[in-house]
Amino acid sequence: MPSTAMMFRSAAEHRAWLASQAALPQGFRVGTTRFEFVPAEVHKPARMTLTLIALERPTDAFALMFTRNAFPGAPIIIGRQRRDEPTLGAIVVNNKISNVCAPDGIGTAERICAAAAAAISAATGQALAPEQVLPSSTGVIGWRLPVDPIVAGLPAAAAALQGASILPAAEGIVTTDLYPKIRRAAVGNGSIVGIAKGAGMIEPNLATMLVYILTDCDVPRGELRAALADAVEGSFNGMSIDSDTSTSDTVALLSSRAVPCPDLGAFRAALAQVCADLAEDVVRNGEGVHHVIRVRVTGAPDHALARGVGKAIVNSPLFQCAVCGNDPNVGRLVAAIGKHVGAVRPDLDLHRTVLTMGGATIFSAGAFHLDPATEKLLVDHLRSAELYASTPPADGLTFKPPVSWPPHERAVEIGVDLGLGNVATTVIGGDRSHEYISENADYRS
Amino acid sequence: MPSTAMMFRSAAEHRAWLASQAALPQGFRVGTTRFEFVPAEVHKPARMTLTLIALERPTDAFALMFTRNAFPGAPIIIGRQRRDEPTLGAIVVNNKISNVCAPDGIGTAERICAAAAAAISAATGQALAPEQVLPSSTGVIGWRLPVDPIVAGLPAAAAALQGASILPAAEGIVTTDLYPKIRRAAVGNGSIVGIAKGAGMIEPNLATMLVYILTDCDVPRGELRAALADAVEGSFNGMSIDSDTSTSDTVALLSSRAVPCPDLGAFRAALAQVCADLAEDVVRNGEGVHHVIRVRVTGAPDHALARGVGKAIVNSPLFQCAVCGNDPNVGRLVAAIGKHVGAVRPDLDLHRTVLTMGGATIFSAGAFHLDPATEKLLVDHLRSAELYASTPPADGLTFKPPVSWPPHERAVEIGVDLGLGNVATTVIGGDRSHEYISENADYRS
Repeated sequence: MPSTAMMFRSAAEHRAWLASQAALPQGFRVGTTRFEFVPAEVHKPARMTLTLIALERPTDAFALMFTRNAFPGAPIIIGRQRRDEPTLGAIVVNNKISNVCAPDGIGTAERICAAAAAAISAATGQALAPEQVLPSSTGVIGWRLPVDPIVAGLPAAAAALQGASILPAAEGIVTTDLYPKIRRAAVGNGSIVGIAKGAGMIEPNLATMLVYILTDCDVPRGELRAALADAVEGSFNGMSIDSDTSTSDTVALLSSRAVPCPDLGAFRAALAQVCADLAEDVVRNGEGVHHVIRVRVTGAPDHALARGVGKAIVNSPLFQCAVCGNDPNVGRLVAAIGKHVGAVRPDLDLHRTVLTMGGATIFSAGAFHLDPATEKLLVDHLRSAELYASTPPADGLTFKPPVSWPPHERAVEIGVDLGLGNVATTVIGGDRSHEYISENADYRS
Repeated sequence: MPSTAMMFRSAAEHRAWLASQAALPQGFRVGTTRFEFVPAEVHKPARMTLTLIALERPTDAFALMFTRNAFPGAPIIIGRQRRDEPTLGAIVVNNKISNVCAPDGIGTAERICAAAAAAISAATGQALAPEQVLPSSTGVIGWRLPVDPIVAGLPAAAAALQGASILPAAEGIVTTDLYPKIRRAAVGNGSIVGIAKGAGMIEPNLATMLVYILTDCDVPRGELRAALADAVEGSFNGMSIDSDTSTSDTVALLSSRAVPCPDLGAFRAALAQVCADLAEDVVRNGEGVHHVIRVRVTGAPDHALARGVGKAIVNSPLFQCAVCGNDPNVGRLVAAIGKHVGAVRPDLDLHRTVLTMGGATIFSAGAFHLDPATEKLLVDHLRSAELYASTPPADGLTFKPPVSWPPHERAVEIGVDLGLGNVATTVIGGDRSHEYISENADYRS
């Protein structure tokens, strides 16, 4: 559940709300710059934004989580080494190209870290070493980073560093996102502020997308890492837009340690809420998402099965399409559940399964209870959760979302009580629409 | 690989070819009938076709395979019991409603079997008992079968029984299929003829869709069942259109035993080819499929990983969309492989992986080899394998395929050599298009 239940009528209203959430915690600065370049792989001009997130002083209190994809990007390989460094001082992020499986990708990323450290040192007078910089890249897989324009652009990003607002960074890291994502929580006199990038290739496994969470709460490294692992498991790992686990998923949590944190429990709860809010923001802004789908699985014998059943539903192309059309084709719900359970736990008996949608019981004791009145109730629930409807595109083929802000925070609410135990979990996902196809049939052009 | 490499310029050409393949093996008859009804769950008129497949004399040589979905349909539950019957004499099939998780679905299916047995007995003079009839249903999940119109329609289907052509049955069992699917093979003086239905909810697990294979080759029950299990594993179990394993998947193989079969090896090879051809037909006719994608995985340490890697590629929504757009976004190939291997075998080292597309090596030694010349080659390969392109729809939203026949039998050819062992397998799937979304956002209306 989101901590808010906002409704926005325009991009301006949404942006004003983002700005109200964007104050940086003490001890952090962000700066960005933008430039044009021509990728070596295709001869079409492209634009890239560089984002710097810098601490006023390097910190030993940081936590980094990365994708489990077996073809990790060069920044992930370097990031895993950075976990063992005594301190971290900055993050350098580029969009457009993800630096995954590109020739000499690691050398390129290291060169960018060195240039970022030098640029920040020159701009701030604060000495920074290359190994104190975490590289991060997102975008097309397989292409080479334009290292010369990046190195040339870093001084401008460093010169733009400011300590007031995280909004430039939230805007700088996006690719196909429709809008930036910022969530915050207060903890005593300190705060936690997180930003996220991601709209496609989203089914995190351990960590997800690009997420940067900054706090001034003084929580030491060990507790910080444990808190992040728990928060990620309860948020990003329970979501999927398109079942495609990225090669570049990254969640970074940095503390400037500027404000005492007397209540670790409150910090953990606030961090979990920020992660859950960002996860839902990512799904709501997922490529072509018309409806957020929230599946609450209860009565499961274990967490793996609970999550597996929820993921099977939100990742079912047929159920996703039905939801997109406001079509309560709930038979596809049992097909998705049955597919998963039949594949992983064929020993289980599902005769106690109860399904609800929008609060209405639609299935129990092995059979559906459907009639025209229930059909209308389900259609009404689907329509109420719709973010927008497709409109015929100008060229007849290329669908684009008509909004660039989240109109509301409602979801299609699915309940699955397996009647087999006491474990419960929540999984969120999105439907599948023409806009997703248009976006991804030619993402690179 | 298909046994043919046909090209068709029109539905008429395709239909003439189907008719040339449609001669029934000795000892079989098929008949169909069609009627209108109003489903109890929504008050909109619908049409249903009943198909009867009858043996001149009940046979003890039959093999039945069913879905592993944990919410199987009533016909599947009954079909599992039929496997132990001494003989089988007929199959009764309806489309439009699948009789899955409907109130008293088993009682309904048993009543239809009894009515089918009586109708066939009356029409042919050949005594048939209800337990000698296999029920089969496909279509909307959760709705109740219109049992009274079905029982009323069965005498007409029985009166239509004829022994010349399987084409009426191939046409009678379809739902969202664009065209019927028939494949045949000769074995000595006998033949094997198969028909298939299925275009969505296709990722079989053990068996798939509705497939009926008839032969007059005299192969006894035990060998028949072993041959079918092998043929299914090498064909239907290696395909996916949308990763949704159906509740109703069925493959039935019946022998009339009318023609001696001196060469069991030749029979098995012919059966495997018929199954492989039908599987590719199903994918090529998959909902909204613009390109068939054939992934050849080699160098795998075991069959499960080989198939898992192939399935991860053909089920990746992002790669599917890229192929649809003739966009060689091959980075999504490594993301899909890495997602799967990272999730199931994180211990494996993928540094020897070699990827090819359309015969061109695009990835080796951990990095891509991409440049504008390779890009052009890959785009040309994708275009050559395209079955059709989307055209702007009349209402701006509802895409429909512009062809109702398979224009050619080419595929997008992907090679994945993992360099980790000696196991190889082939997986086939399709791309993801606007037509799939349009088809499934409101399938029931």
